Amino acid sequence: MIQKIVLIGAGNLATQLGKALRENGLDVVQVYSRTEASAKALAFVLECPYTTSLDELEPCDLCLVSVKDDALETVLRQIPLETTVVHTAGSIPMELLSNYFKNFGVFYPLQTFSKQRDVDFSTIPICLEASSDEVFADLQVLAQKLSSSVQPIYSEERRVLHLAAVYTCNFVNHLYQIGDSMLEEKGLSFDLLKPLIQETAQKVMGMKPIDAQTGPAVRMDETIINKHLDLLADQPERKKIYQLVTESIYKTQNTK
Amino acid sequence: MIQKIVLIGAGNLATQLGKALRENGLDVVQVYSRTEASAKALAFVLECPYTTSLDELEPCDLCLVSVKDDALETVLRQIPLETTVVHTAGSIPMELLSNYFKNFGVFYPLQTFSKQRDVDFSTIPICLEASSDEVFADLQVLAQKLSSSVQPIYSEERRVLHLAAVYTCNFVNHLYQIGDSMLEEKGLSFDLLKPLIQETAQKVMGMKPIDAQTGPAVRMDETIINKHLDLLADQPERKKIYQLVTESIYKTQNTK
Repeated sequence: MIQKIVLIGAGNLATQLGKALRENGLDVVQVYSRTEASAKALAFVLECPYTTSLDELEPCDLCLVSVKDDALETVLRQIPLETTVVHTAGSIPMELLSNYFKNFGVFYPLQTFSKQRDVDFSTIPICLEASSDEVFADLQVLAQKLSSSVQPIYSEERRVLHLAAVYTCNFVNHLYQIGDSMLEEKGLSFDLLKPLIQETAQKVMGMKPIDAQTGPAVRMDETIINKHLDLLADQPERKKIYQLVTESIYKTQNTK
Repeated sequence: MIQKIVLIGAGNLATQLGKALRENGLDVVQVYSRTEASAKALAFVLECPYTTSLDELEPCDLCLVSVKDDALETVLRQIPLETTVVHTAGSIPMELLSNYFKNFGVFYPLQTFSKQRDVDFSTIPICLEASSDEVFADLQVLAQKLSSSVQPIYSEERRVLHLAAVYTCNFVNHLYQIGDSMLEEKGLSFDLLKPLIQETAQKVMGMKPIDAQTGPAVRMDETIINKHLDLLADQPERKKIYQLVTESIYKTQNTK
């Protein structure tokens, strides 16, 4: 059974995951980050020791590695522990860990995390993959302490999930940002868009997105579309996004 | 005071607006649509008569015209009533109505409407514009019966609001649809993305979108981005959207 956890990384995901582990009675015994300020800040929140040296990791039941993808392999190579090691990355195959450890897996919570915003972990899908049934069972027990939505997801599936999350979260947020900045330029408040943003998200909780689609692109309403493109005349990037997404909506709606 | 309303149009917006008017004690005395089936269906819901001929419109205090932008002028030209006439379109200037009527205005509820999904009107921003203070006052009283968020918005502002709504609602929904279809192709459930979609929307209720941004585009994490582009190799349209939005996020985040 997993009780003592060492957390490698102190970014957005590590921070929120660390808090959730602690709130659910798990024991985060140590935090590592290359950056002392980050390690210290998270260790303060979790009330545990920290280190900036991978040689000084504490013994534990699980080493949870949540660092940037580009740094992952460098970090893995230096972990001297003989314990179960998991990563939390959407697009990295589990097999990478087999080069360095005997027991390993993936622990991928599918959510957007910011350090300064706490999230309710209880509904977040936690996608698990493990090197053996025993490791999977241990990770499952752990994940179920945090969330009621624990899913076995293989590396190939996880990669697609991560890509879909980029569209439906990161790219969506960028569209919010474009809306915000357009309104700001006119002295209008972003508050005006908030009920629309909420309803747009809420709608697809019960309808398929393809059926929830509205707007001028559905029927390629050229009168409106041309007015919008006029407004975007001095914004080439926004204009390209407008044209591309409009075409894509039209095609999708008219070939369904 | 506005009590008797004739509703011109029976589309998504007209349907939801008609329902909201009725639920709030207003009297929809007649529905018009060129298409008999649509007129009949909405008249049935609103328990009022319908017509498919603009010559047969009933006397009323307000004629609410909610038809497709392309059809608007043709319809306006044929309305024989000497009453206040308003349209509900985001991108059409109020002044168009001055060619046909003495008292006129715009009544624009900023929301996404589908016939089959009821919405709570009470928080929807209703954007008003009117040909005179008297007409504005009447429209304001009416709008405040439906919503606590009634806003004076001029045509130029409304045009920008509508464009921002296209990005933050119509385009956002299309990104949901891309996510849904990616998952479907892998046999994965769209349910996995729902907590993420909700949190992404919820996040910007309290944070500026530019500060809520996460994902590989923020730091142009090429390892992940290239993996994603590989997955999109046989999807040129999705790939173009990916590249364009990724670049746009990177620029926005690194010039703020």
